[in-house]
Amino acid sequence: MTDRERARQHLSQSPRMSKGERTRQRIIDSATELFSRSGYRAVSLRDIASHAGITHAGVLHHFPNKEATLIHVLSKRDAVDAPLVLDEGISHRELIDNIVRIVERNTGTPGLVALYVNLSAEATDPAHPAHEYFFGRYQILRELLVPAFAELLGDRPHPTPEVAAQQFLALQDGLQVQWLLDPGTVDMRGAVVSFLRTLGITVPDDPAGPAAPADPARPTGTDSTGGADPT
Amino acid sequence: MTDRERARQHLSQSPRMSKGERTRQRIIDSATELFSRSGYRAVSLRDIASHAGITHAGVLHHFPNKEATLIHVLSKRDAVDAPLVLDEGISHRELIDNIVRIVERNTGTPGLVALYVNLSAEATDPAHPAHEYFFGRYQILRELLVPAFAELLGDRPHPTPEVAAQQFLALQDGLQVQWLLDPGTVDMRGAVVSFLRTLGITVPDDPAGPAAPADPARPTGTDSTGGADPT
Repeated sequence: MTDRERARQHLSQSPRMSKGERTRQRIIDSATELFSRSGYRAVSLRDIASHAGITHAGVLHHFPNKEATLIHVLSKRDAVDAPLVLDEGISHRELIDNIVRIVERNTGTPGLVALYVNLSAEATDPAHPAHEYFFGRYQILRELLVPAFAELLGDRPHPTPEVAAQQFLALQDGLQVQWLLDPGTVDMRGAVVSFLRTLGITVPDDPAGPAAPADPARPTGTDSTGGADPT
Repeated sequence: MTDRERARQHLSQSPRMSKGERTRQRIIDSATELFSRSGYRAVSLRDIASHAGITHAGVLHHFPNKEATLIHVLSKRDAVDAPLVLDEGISHRELIDNIVRIVERNTGTPGLVALYVNLSAEATDPAHPAHEYFFGRYQILRELLVPAFAELLGDRPHPTPEVAAQQFLALQDGLQVQWLLDPGTVDMRGAVVSFLRTLGITVPDDPAGPAAPADPARPTGTDSTGGADPT
């Protein structure tokens, strides 16, 4: 390593990244922010370049087209969440708890929530470049959740594990729209935990989480604005 | 009425519409279809003109800008659904039944489902022209549903009517995304009815509905691909 490299590492916020890696990172960060705000289709590669403070040609040096940035935006996100749901050895109980934890964590990242809400909506069109991604994502999540609900619902004849898995995922997605529109009125974690509780599945309180009620002593059912503070 | 007008009425598909009204209708139909497919932001007024087979100037004669078409697309839809949920004199029980009926009817109109999924996602951005519309829409629906659930949940201590209303709306929205991505695996009506049943609220079967199972004798829980046929 040269002195200059050492100095650059010392000065840089991401010391282990090369200049090229940092540029790629900046492009992906800009793409993530713009897709979160406007969806994929309404954003151009030139918009991404301009937001990142890089020339259009500079972006093309790293990503051949806009679709390539989308794939990287989605993969980057999955790399964070995948171990919480996909790792072998996770019990059915832990899978549900981890998903509740992701719901809770999401209240701290409205931009990423908006990214998923916008991209999954657009991607319902079979011609959208993320269609296969979202199709597969729900397939995988349902395949994981059906045996989990089959165990956790026990002898309960209703709903079937298949329906419970669809409801559990749908509830999370729908709550995100209401929460983004009006964060003060929706407690995403609370509503998901309540759904599970109705099915006889209790989830431990997580007072350290960002979505925990500000006042755990607050009686339930008296405050229609909910207890979550997403800020 | 001149002979020519009479002849035009006779030949036209919408005999009571003037030529101008038919043109407006064609523009709104094109806007609805394009917004459903790509969202609002990615569609231009020129795209709408081209799809409707009208010049850009012709569209501008009827609508000053793209936002005006959006307002008309949303109002047109509301005019159909509003009587089912907003009419005075609808009981709490009828409100829930009518919403289940709308869910069922939606399985016959995937384009309109995609329109709402796409627009509500985009409109989570406070800068989107439909933000106030969707903000108000959920507010009104929750205000109608909270007293309905307060009555129908009876003495049940959990969930609160506020949480049940949010869950009920979220479930419908989330199911639409899964259903659009993979219609064969999701029975939207079935999942909503199942949610209500878990809360002790039964909904009468509607075998004439488009979302009724093809084979009522099919055992539940053994077929993970579901029984709904949305076509």
